[in-house]
Amino acid sequence: MKTPIEPIERVIDELGKLPGIGRRSAERMAYHLLAASEKDAMALAVAIRDLKKRLHPCRVCGAVTDGDLCVFCSDPDRDRSAVCVVESQRDALALDETGAYRGLFHVLGGRLSPTAGTGPEQLSVEPLLARLDGGEIREVILATNPDLEGDGTAAFLAEMVERRSGAKISRLARGLSSGGQIELAGRDSLGAALANRQPLRGKA
Amino acid sequence: MKTPIEPIERVIDELGKLPGIGRRSAERMAYHLLAASEKDAMALAVAIRDLKKRLHPCRVCGAVTDGDLCVFCSDPDRDRSAVCVVESQRDALALDETGAYRGLFHVLGGRLSPTAGTGPEQLSVEPLLARLDGGEIREVILATNPDLEGDGTAAFLAEMVERRSGAKISRLARGLSSGGQIELAGRDSLGAALANRQPLRGKA
Repeated sequence: MKTPIEPIERVIDELGKLPGIGRRSAERMAYHLLAASEKDAMALAVAIRDLKKRLHPCRVCGAVTDGDLCVFCSDPDRDRSAVCVVESQRDALALDETGAYRGLFHVLGGRLSPTAGTGPEQLSVEPLLARLDGGEIREVILATNPDLEGDGTAAFLAEMVERRSGAKISRLARGLSSGGQIELAGRDSLGAALANRQPLRGKA
Repeated sequence: MKTPIEPIERVIDELGKLPGIGRRSAERMAYHLLAASEKDAMALAVAIRDLKKRLHPCRVCGAVTDGDLCVFCSDPDRDRSAVCVVESQRDALALDETGAYRGLFHVLGGRLSPTAGTGPEQLSVEPLLARLDGGEIREVILATNPDLEGDGTAAFLAEMVERRSGAKISRLARGLSSGGQIELAGRDSLGAALANRQPLRGKA
């Protein structure tokens, strides 16, 4: 249903550009906003504006922040000897939420991609290496995604980090998803689960 | 995943208030906006602001418009002897898009609902009756939704319209959905389809 009213159509268009939002959903949302109070609708418009105006990358790690340092870098309780290197902010938040890691992060802002034409100079690689120079960082966890480009990025970074520092370099473990089923697991995950099998008892 | 960065969290919150948008979708959308260019993200913020600032009800029929009269009332090619009464703007657009109707509309702005406490004075009933006074309107199509409250609203309006004008009063037909299946049709629809069966040939 094409709306002949330009301001409505424009909101539908713009909402339709968001990920996972089709024409129908965008219409429902636009008409909801139309019917909503001016206060409620404007709260969304202002929140989006603030998102773009108030946030910028942390000057140390590249995570977005509205301050000088991000929530990670400014936290005095974090272990400053470990840096976990991620492709995006969301990855950092997801890893942090596990509670299994209390070190610092470094946000690359993407991954190496020959097809997309993304090279090291488009990513926050040099700032990562510069962070190593202080000598405080003793472990670098390469937490790029477990896929072809993520693995390639990790391999590249491992070499760069090794040249620049004596820090331990690790990569997130591969294996079965917790709660998953062996018969449904992918061949690569299953292979990794076998190769990285964990000893339970007895000796080799 | 709770985001510890207030401007992002606020966008997620506001997007999450939209119909059909859960926390996960709101997150995806917010991070998409965060990564988008300022120009693209602001296009949505500005579109939402314009939606609220530029639109108001048509002074004749109540459909929203950015002008004095809406797209229907200002269209010189429409049949001014018929008015189709709908609950919402979207209903008017959906009916108009069929191409089966080229008359005018009247947007009630809801329907009578004893449970929600919506009475005739909250709806655009009096303006509808006032439109009949000119005598130009010779048919009133009551196109409120085919459910309990929509039927109640139509029954109420039918009585009001009858008192005020000699116009023909009709209601949208009930029956089977085109493309639907008889075995899956609801009892009411099936009953209506039987009661309103259309003669094909032969005589009664």
